[in-house]
Amino acid sequence: MNVLIVFAHPERHSLNGALLDVAVRDLEAQGHKVQVSDLYRLQWKPAVDRSDFPDVGQGDRLKVASASARDFTAGNLTEDVKAEQEKLLWADTVIFQFPLWWFSMPAILKGWIDRVYACGFAYGVGEHNDKRWGDRYGEGKMAGKRAMLVVTTGGWPEHYSARGINGPIDDVLFHITHGMLFYPGFAVLPSFVAYRVDRLNEAQFADVSAQLCSRLRELETASPIAYRNQNGGDYQIPSMELLEGLEKSGETGFSLHVAAP
Amino acid sequence: MNVLIVFAHPERHSLNGALLDVAVRDLEAQGHKVQVSDLYRLQWKPAVDRSDFPDVGQGDRLKVASASARDFTAGNLTEDVKAEQEKLLWADTVIFQFPLWWFSMPAILKGWIDRVYACGFAYGVGEHNDKRWGDRYGEGKMAGKRAMLVVTTGGWPEHYSARGINGPIDDVLFHITHGMLFYPGFAVLPSFVAYRVDRLNEAQFADVSAQLCSRLRELETASPIAYRNQNGGDYQIPSMELLEGLEKSGETGFSLHVAAP
Repeated sequence: MNVLIVFAHPERHSLNGALLDVAVRDLEAQGHKVQVSDLYRLQWKPAVDRSDFPDVGQGDRLKVASASARDFTAGNLTEDVKAEQEKLLWADTVIFQFPLWWFSMPAILKGWIDRVYACGFAYGVGEHNDKRWGDRYGEGKMAGKRAMLVVTTGGWPEHYSARGINGPIDDVLFHITHGMLFYPGFAVLPSFVAYRVDRLNEAQFADVSAQLCSRLRELETASPIAYRNQNGGDYQIPSMELLEGLEKSGETGFSLHVAAP
Repeated sequence: MNVLIVFAHPERHSLNGALLDVAVRDLEAQGHKVQVSDLYRLQWKPAVDRSDFPDVGQGDRLKVASASARDFTAGNLTEDVKAEQEKLLWADTVIFQFPLWWFSMPAILKGWIDRVYACGFAYGVGEHNDKRWGDRYGEGKMAGKRAMLVVTTGGWPEHYSARGINGPIDDVLFHITHGMLFYPGFAVLPSFVAYRVDRLNEAQFADVSAQLCSRLRELETASPIAYRNQNGGDYQIPSMELLEGLEKSGETGFSLHVAAP
């Protein structure tokens, strides 16, 4: 299997970097091919701007989605973006590994999403009309591939529990797992989260490494999160609201979009 | 009142830019003082890296939180970051205005949060022990100030409704409103969201502008979202889990952290 790891940490000699080494070693030992996009090493440019769209003139008004669609179709996106898109197409599984900063990803990784996820590649895919709202949420160019987050945080697991003040970790990560991974078509595996990473001793690091390796060995077989496919019959079209009666009694919020077991 | 608008759109001649003009004009007409941090115009550097921390040597391992705390305390953060921190201290109300990209903020704005929100300034404030987990979630250096998001999206309101496939808009924005604004102490006003902005005609733009102005005139008087203060007695310490029985029957997820009316 081909595995792409998109890695976003400013210090390669960090716990996050050590976990990356563990992951690469373990995946290769399983016979997988691994590519790593180390965004800090690549000096990835985070901000979408005019320079991303060569055919938008200096005096022209920049409309990001239409410029992105035009340059993607014409093969005119910048070389750094095209290289990452190629890696995505090559991969069977994509791992996004980052420290949780302010309940989301570091800016450099958000900028990878903002730029690599071109219109026609990750959104604006498929027919859009009142009967069909494109290929997204379970369909799209990433369909057939798997994705997983590997996240480190200084916070305690209790603070991210069902009643914890930060919100449940799966809800905190929903804008990424559902919004950035399931949307372009990935099957999304449950996130791997390492807590309290600022205080790990050697034995605890060995423990976290072992847990990660055990998750990596199930990459091909683990059940993805049961997010509901947009075009699978569960949603009204075009309002894209969940049909009544599909949820557990009293259920609200993000969990509506996960099918009951 | 002093109002800071942090603006993150790559095209000043966009609908978002036009709404910025409307906002500045209306706020000044009310007698407020306004500063705008236009992040693209400032060519804001998004990625936290080694160059943010002058006292970390080339061979030293970069630990972001401790480097940030040390350089913040010593007044050694970079000039661009110090200038933004000064604006935050000057402001009575802060507005964050941006297009919703991939269910979050553009990378350039996330990079403003990642860099301006130093340790000792926006987190790691106050005493941290088993009895008190710092000044955060309703306390902190931003206490006494108000904040509000002004967000544009191409999506339909139905898609962000209670049962909409994108998730309820207040839950989608929770990692920002609760995680990035309430956390350092802001009182957070309900978000202003303009939907389907790619298709607005002139009359619809006038309508959205009028709605925005009406919200801006209530900046000082509107009730903030009733997020629960961490240190107000609603949470167990140090697990920071909501005490049993405070929520509406059957309530789960992010809404637990909003007090019932």
